[in-house]
Amino acid sequence: MRLLTLRTANGTRAVRQDGDTLTEIDGFTDVGELLRSADWEATAKAANGAKHPLKGADLDAVVPSPGKIICVGHNYRNHIKEMGREVPEFPTLFAKYQESLIGPNDDLALPQESSTVDWESELAVVIGKKGRRIAEADAADHIAGYAVLNDVSMRDYQFRTIQWLQGKTWEKSTPFGPALVTKDEFSGGLMTTAVDGEIQQSTPTNDVVFTPEFLVSYISTIITLNPGDVIATGTPGGVGHAQDPKRYLQEGQILVTTIEGLGELKNRVVKEA
Amino acid sequence: MRLLTLRTANGTRAVRQDGDTLTEIDGFTDVGELLRSADWEATAKAANGAKHPLKGADLDAVVPSPGKIICVGHNYRNHIKEMGREVPEFPTLFAKYQESLIGPNDDLALPQESSTVDWESELAVVIGKKGRRIAEADAADHIAGYAVLNDVSMRDYQFRTIQWLQGKTWEKSTPFGPALVTKDEFSGGLMTTAVDGEIQQSTPTNDVVFTPEFLVSYISTIITLNPGDVIATGTPGGVGHAQDPKRYLQEGQILVTTIEGLGELKNRVVKEA
Repeated sequence: MRLLTLRTANGTRAVRQDGDTLTEIDGFTDVGELLRSADWEATAKAANGAKHPLKGADLDAVVPSPGKIICVGHNYRNHIKEMGREVPEFPTLFAKYQESLIGPNDDLALPQESSTVDWESELAVVIGKKGRRIAEADAADHIAGYAVLNDVSMRDYQFRTIQWLQGKTWEKSTPFGPALVTKDEFSGGLMTTAVDGEIQQSTPTNDVVFTPEFLVSYISTIITLNPGDVIATGTPGGVGHAQDPKRYLQEGQILVTTIEGLGELKNRVVKEA
Repeated sequence: MRLLTLRTANGTRAVRQDGDTLTEIDGFTDVGELLRSADWEATAKAANGAKHPLKGADLDAVVPSPGKIICVGHNYRNHIKEMGREVPEFPTLFAKYQESLIGPNDDLALPQESSTVDWESELAVVIGKKGRRIAEADAADHIAGYAVLNDVSMRDYQFRTIQWLQGKTWEKSTPFGPALVTKDEFSGGLMTTAVDGEIQQSTPTNDVVFTPEFLVSYISTIITLNPGDVIATGTPGGVGHAQDPKRYLQEGQILVTTIEGLGELKNRVVKEA
């Protein structure tokens, strides 16, 4: 099942996608709110609200207001190598705030303050069931599904200090969507990043040190995971900062982030006024 | 004016403190919700709801669900020195999630997984007005007031990787309160930490590299600050991890965090089951 958050003239709506048609899930303004309700999966399956064509739909970030966005660094071996790191014993965790999220086709804000804006395509895990100290064997029960996210990073700010947060959470810079694909319909796929049609990253999402199930277990040891929480599971090799010469996003470029089986984010890079 | 979040039999309530009396601010379940309303200051001043004695009041974290908790590292010169760092050019920023917050007199959860739980007393800035790219000269307008926060840190997890988040956001480990003191009533004071009555940290809150106004301006360059957002402005020297021998919180100890003019957090350290 594919769940999306649609912008309408009356505000956002959680919708189910069947082929080219979106069906409103009555009573829920977005997929995050849906996930926070009991029996969200049955509710979504049974929904029979107003219909909209997928074509031309104005989509919001699939979960526009997650309680937590937890990001993982150093998870793909080819990215660990290009950044000059060693394969880690523990996942590297950092945060992002919800104000950084944008929809799958929204403009990506290139701030006037940074000239080193880089891509980091990632598989996002969306939590569907609350839990603390979740055993790895039980973690799949707590995952609602998966989506595509680009952890766009302002490298100058990221490396101003030893903590990355200030390079990772710029306003309207993190495309997230297009859909939450429930976990029964996704078991990994090729993730690619293209800038103006030129492939920059291309790695299967399964090529990780820490799996989604391990991450759910590890993070929930520290803090309760709640429905709608998002784990961005790290980026593979091919970021612009690690290329020679280094490459960064420029005004007017189109950033396309794709995961086979999940869909595509297509965002124009627009300089802020 | 002093604003608090009171737990009652019917859920939490935003209250105003006048001497020993707490007065409910009708229509607002907590101070965060109050701050997100227009004219919150006039509303709070005029409130005349149900009364409760301060004595014996069961207080929640003053803002229980901030949209963002942004923490600052390396801000007090004596802490920078004890951690072996240099005075920084830019503030070091990292995050904490709301599930880590507890009330000013709640038990502090000592997790079974960490044996190196340390104190970090901090002045918390609470945002009262939305803004992006706020000039430092205008920053005071965006600050609602101040409170006390202890950024209790699990040092083993903090230093497992190069990003601190996983040592900074353990469930029910961050006391925050007791009150939001509006900015007209606070201009700095002595901050002290005591463990079982023994003073560990004692430094004036004004002894910082980056002031609250600078931090509001800096952070809002990156991302919109919203009412109820919290900036924890860093800890001074005297953390347990920097002592010789190192000292950490133990089951049954009482951690008292005080800022002159703001009040006191008093939390018993209780091992999780």
